[in-house]
Amino acid sequence: MAQKPSIPKGTRDFAPIEMARRNYIFNTIKEVFRLYGFQQIETPAMENLSTLMGKYGDEGDKLLFKVLNSGDFLSDVEQAELESRNSVKLIKKISEKGLRYDLTVPFARFVVMNRDKLSFPFKRYQIQPVWRADKPQKGRYREFYQCDVDVVGSDSLMNEVELMQIVDEVYRRLKVNVCIKINNRKILTGIAEVIGQADKIVDITVAIDKLDKIGLENVNAELASKGIPAESIEKLQPIILLQGSNEEKLQTIREVLASSEIGLKGVEEVATILEHVRLLGVQTEVELDLTLARGLNYYTGAIFEVKAKDVQIGSITGGGRYDNLTGVFGMDGVSGVGISFGADRIYDVLNQLDLYPAEMLQSTKLIFVTFGNEELKYAMQCLKSVRAAGIAAEVFPEPAKMKKQMGYADSKGIPFVAIIGDTEMKEQKIMLKNMATGEQNLVSVEEAIQMLGGGK
Amino acid sequence: MAQKPSIPKGTRDFAPIEMARRNYIFNTIKEVFRLYGFQQIETPAMENLSTLMGKYGDEGDKLLFKVLNSGDFLSDVEQAELESRNSVKLIKKISEKGLRYDLTVPFARFVVMNRDKLSFPFKRYQIQPVWRADKPQKGRYREFYQCDVDVVGSDSLMNEVELMQIVDEVYRRLKVNVCIKINNRKILTGIAEVIGQADKIVDITVAIDKLDKIGLENVNAELASKGIPAESIEKLQPIILLQGSNEEKLQTIREVLASSEIGLKGVEEVATILEHVRLLGVQTEVELDLTLARGLNYYTGAIFEVKAKDVQIGSITGGGRYDNLTGVFGMDGVSGVGISFGADRIYDVLNQLDLYPAEMLQSTKLIFVTFGNEELKYAMQCLKSVRAAGIAAEVFPEPAKMKKQMGYADSKGIPFVAIIGDTEMKEQKIMLKNMATGEQNLVSVEEAIQMLGGGK
Repeated sequence: MAQKPSIPKGTRDFAPIEMARRNYIFNTIKEVFRLYGFQQIETPAMENLSTLMGKYGDEGDKLLFKVLNSGDFLSDVEQAELESRNSVKLIKKISEKGLRYDLTVPFARFVVMNRDKLSFPFKRYQIQPVWRADKPQKGRYREFYQCDVDVVGSDSLMNEVELMQIVDEVYRRLKVNVCIKINNRKILTGIAEVIGQADKIVDITVAIDKLDKIGLENVNAELASKGIPAESIEKLQPIILLQGSNEEKLQTIREVLASSEIGLKGVEEVATILEHVRLLGVQTEVELDLTLARGLNYYTGAIFEVKAKDVQIGSITGGGRYDNLTGVFGMDGVSGVGISFGADRIYDVLNQLDLYPAEMLQSTKLIFVTFGNEELKYAMQCLKSVRAAGIAAEVFPEPAKMKKQMGYADSKGIPFVAIIGDTEMKEQKIMLKNMATGEQNLVSVEEAIQMLGGGK
Repeated sequence: MAQKPSIPKGTRDFAPIEMARRNYIFNTIKEVFRLYGFQQIETPAMENLSTLMGKYGDEGDKLLFKVLNSGDFLSDVEQAELESRNSVKLIKKISEKGLRYDLTVPFARFVVMNRDKLSFPFKRYQIQPVWRADKPQKGRYREFYQCDVDVVGSDSLMNEVELMQIVDEVYRRLKVNVCIKINNRKILTGIAEVIGQADKIVDITVAIDKLDKIGLENVNAELASKGIPAESIEKLQPIILLQGSNEEKLQTIREVLASSEIGLKGVEEVATILEHVRLLGVQTEVELDLTLARGLNYYTGAIFEVKAKDVQIGSITGGGRYDNLTGVFGMDGVSGVGISFGADRIYDVLNQLDLYPAEMLQSTKLIFVTFGNEELKYAMQCLKSVRAAGIAAEVFPEPAKMKKQMGYADSKGIPFVAIIGDTEMKEQKIMLKNMATGEQNLVSVEEAIQMLGGGK
């Protein structure tokens, strides 16, 4: 009967220490969201496949985990369909639900279904797992958390500004050194317009992005190889060689895009956002980066990406403005802007830099150690007062050997031990031992509470 | 292209107000768990079907949501198997993962997989959704949260005592009036032993449970109809008519079970737990209830159930001691005791009794209302100080009409509005309006922070 259990590949258990670390990250982020007036929502793990399919491209459709219909799922399947052995077609007959792939599509669905109840601008955040049937590899999981914050129903650039303030505040609190890269889809559209290559914008940004690695000559060669005429490449030179402060870059782009209305609009949007961010004293480095083009087809205005400066890892936060999130569900004209914090990567960064405050990872602060039932009874009375003061505390639940009890305290990283013996009970005190220093003091429970910083 | 979106039946979205309520419940419970030294873990939503199947009975196997294998899931299925149209058999070929059905089996799996890393007693809590393909109805969902707290690896009854303290503390904090019912599987075994009807214990408890509704005569008739001989029914009379205080009940049962070693052990366990609970000043009513038999086959010692006294609803918390949680995964001899808080029912109780503290449901405390870009800029500077003081605050992101901005503030239940106009900017102040009283004061940002109770 017994089997050696395992978990599905690409999934993880989170043990107490991992949960403590993750909770520290999530609680830090949530507290900042709260300060900025964002409210939490949650959506179901399963969505109808009709909601999910076709929203993430063909590749995305394949990566959706599909849930078998309950009961006799074959009852509606015709014999011929079964015999054709076409998995893709058969899915539609035997599965109508899937696990959510991201938080964006469920959010769009939520907004459309609740349009009459919500007041706009709607500022929501959502922290939940998503599932993708990707090939698992280092740092890539089949179940992972997303942490999205969005404002929908407002065109104001002040939303972009506040999202940058949020990034600044979150990473300041997490003590992670980051750089925010910013771009604007309208600038990219303007560039393509100005050089007459509207359909080549992806090739162009990919090539420009390689400047540092391969040099100007090779970038130009790559552009030519993608079919971009010499004249257009010539016009691109100031963009490829773009350098200097954000202000200098904006000035250069303004000149290049002089003939493009949409391009200039993009420039002004970036300028406005940067000016406000400066006035508000955002400390994080902000860099205008024209090679930033994440989800090009999706974003319509600002594009953001956040990189950790002290760790070699991809983007740890990213997002931008989109103009028709809910259109696919029949609700047009809702503009939104949002960013997503990459919980797993932030976790990796904090692990590598060891940035967890010790007290965040500590659960129990004091454990009582006893060697008899009367002592145990006495300890449980003491515990009442300690816990009432808000101090997490416990007692080893049976009078086991000293070594066993101390080993338990040690493995759980409990910093204080209260040893209870005859003397302690007689004097109505506890022997409080500081595990780091080895110091021991015979003190009253009230004194112990004070020493441990208990409140109330 | 546009479709009217919906969510799978039996699932729910949680809007901000619902999330605030649920977070209040979960945070209250978590804080008590923390004070008692319990640590959080999480397990993946998907488990291997080999882990889940056969653990919940045939009915449970049917209620598991199964996830289709990725890719061409039909490739390993033989033609004959396909043509036989046997859904149950086919599942094994096309699905190897399922959504977790409860938190107990994943926890057992976790303990077995991490046995070498854990230090026992292992005190864990886990708050995650579970999924069951049950027929949805009022109060029964296909996705719902469980909130389990367990100690494994310790036989000490002090664990039972602490779990009762936790129940007492959680419901005191939530201001819900409850009664804890307690029983012990060993007492039930003893009763069956004494009357010579070991296999009829379920029928016996079901019948006894009906005493209040159908009267003694009918209870006895029902017992007879289940094949229990007159002599045994005669011996059962003191049990059926059991009344009085817990001490009186224990005394009666002690006499009835005088010849049953295991029965007397159960009596002493209950007596010990009740005595400690009394000494520790647990305020919640605790009632020994011999008809309590939840999960009879599962529990081996104490059995608990918690009922809300002011709302007609089933059990809102329950649990007990089990002696072989991990045996099915090849790890014997691990005793544990745990309880599960029924989040959805607790939510219903708090809703019905309207027990949410107003400040728990409030997100933003102050909103700035502006009528021009300069005012908006000024408001964003003020916001920095307000948020730095820990006060959740926002600004309507564009200078819209007064009515629109106030309507937004109202719909979000924001209690204070800061109106910014020429005068306010000139005097470097804000016009702070209390939405409940209508009172307005021209104050500095620092004064406003003080009035709103900001810290730091």
